[in-house]
Amino acid sequence: MIGVFDSGLGGLTALKALAKRLPNEDLVYFGDTGRVPYGTRSPETIKKYSLEDLRFLSSFGVDAVLIACGTVSSTALDTLRSASDIEIYGVIAPAIDAAVKATKNGKIGVIGTSATIKSDAFGRGIREASPSLSVTSIACPLFVPLVENGFASPGDEVTLAAVRRYLSPLRETGIDTLILGCTHYPIIDWAIAEVLPGVNLISSGEAAANALADDIESGHIKTSGGKASGTIRCYCSDKPSDFEATAAIFMGDVSIGKAEKINIEDYAI
Amino acid sequence: MIGVFDSGLGGLTALKALAKRLPNEDLVYFGDTGRVPYGTRSPETIKKYSLEDLRFLSSFGVDAVLIACGTVSSTALDTLRSASDIEIYGVIAPAIDAAVKATKNGKIGVIGTSATIKSDAFGRGIREASPSLSVTSIACPLFVPLVENGFASPGDEVTLAAVRRYLSPLRETGIDTLILGCTHYPIIDWAIAEVLPGVNLISSGEAAANALADDIESGHIKTSGGKASGTIRCYCSDKPSDFEATAAIFMGDVSIGKAEKINIEDYAI
Repeated sequence: MIGVFDSGLGGLTALKALAKRLPNEDLVYFGDTGRVPYGTRSPETIKKYSLEDLRFLSSFGVDAVLIACGTVSSTALDTLRSASDIEIYGVIAPAIDAAVKATKNGKIGVIGTSATIKSDAFGRGIREASPSLSVTSIACPLFVPLVENGFASPGDEVTLAAVRRYLSPLRETGIDTLILGCTHYPIIDWAIAEVLPGVNLISSGEAAANALADDIESGHIKTSGGKASGTIRCYCSDKPSDFEATAAIFMGDVSIGKAEKINIEDYAI
Repeated sequence: MIGVFDSGLGGLTALKALAKRLPNEDLVYFGDTGRVPYGTRSPETIKKYSLEDLRFLSSFGVDAVLIACGTVSSTALDTLRSASDIEIYGVIAPAIDAAVKATKNGKIGVIGTSATIKSDAFGRGIREASPSLSVTSIACPLFVPLVENGFASPGDEVTLAAVRRYLSPLRETGIDTLILGCTHYPIIDWAIAEVLPGVNLISSGEAAANALADDIESGHIKTSGGKASGTIRCYCSDKPSDFEATAAIFMGDVSIGKAEKINIEDYAI
């Protein structure tokens, strides 16, 4: 069984990729909808909240956990790994691998929440992969509220204006590859593609899901999958009916059933 | 001593109005910046969070509490009053009084967070004040993230596009008065005025601060004010330095000093 968590709904893009790759695996998802967004909070608060999220998922006896959240992956990955024996996957390294493979001109862009960009986790990793690569990073703190408040339909003028504001400076840099360092961002990739035509867009959630699926298929990680029934269970900390409605759009043909509300403060460290 | 709280920074518009009216009164402010925004959460979660906020302010021995938050005032006022003997002021009734006085044509608009508009607290109150008044209410869930992420400077194109999207339907209704039912909204009143020229804009936070100050000056509420030194203490649940920087802009010539971070989960009910 694999646990997946995010501050809210963005991680569902990774859950969907996992479900497609590993149809026999049991999956359990937690979205902290009672405290979303994480990306504008301090590192201490992000660590505290994500330790609680991990503790909740651990209660299911999961074999591995995918942190389907750029903010937590960039800010609290070491904290979570120190706190648990479970195999923990973040989105940073897999997205960097995919971007380094994709770029032709060596110019990579990174966008994410304020906390993610401030951590420089993507930038550091790209420079470590090869010092000849150039990186430009930009924080886009309004993108998560835009997605969570329904400003996501292709052509939306408010979202386009916000994407133009944040990303126009990236046009000057000549990047050919852009890491979407927050799992919400693929929902508005149509706007990003309009402002940055011809640029490869790397979904960090999908990259991470593929890295975890590769490790399971190669036997590097042992799970209950295969003999398991391939159920998907979803939990959130507020508004389960809203969660279900939005999840249905995110997940497409992958059914998640009912979402259950839990009190995440019961898992306070 | 008076306690003031909000989900985040919006309540500072009310704190400033209080400080101006009652310069000798001790004031203590709490902004729940670790869990902002409240307006998109469920009534149960809003009640739980605001009970914790009230419990924190009660620890100072305050004489009265001003809920400088439209979401909490519309969703949890009765819950908070049942839970405490302290005099509790919300923003709903004072804003309605001000709007009913201001309207000439009897057509009033109300804007607020999703939770506020869903509660219909303003609409119900206006219809009770006079059944001949007509009310049109619209939820504007992106306004708080716009303000909290710095899209607030006069002329901002993203904010103008969002305000146009939400408020254009109000133009058809012929309202002459609009209640800003969320204490963040006065920060973008320039955009609201551009989309709805000539409409009276009622700041719910300022109306509530004035109602409380009237009751103190008339002796209806007894406080330590007068003999007190008129200090303002500020607390928040995350990022105190960001709080201080933004508060300096909100508060203008009213100095708040340092903001202290507290762990609001210590006050869990």
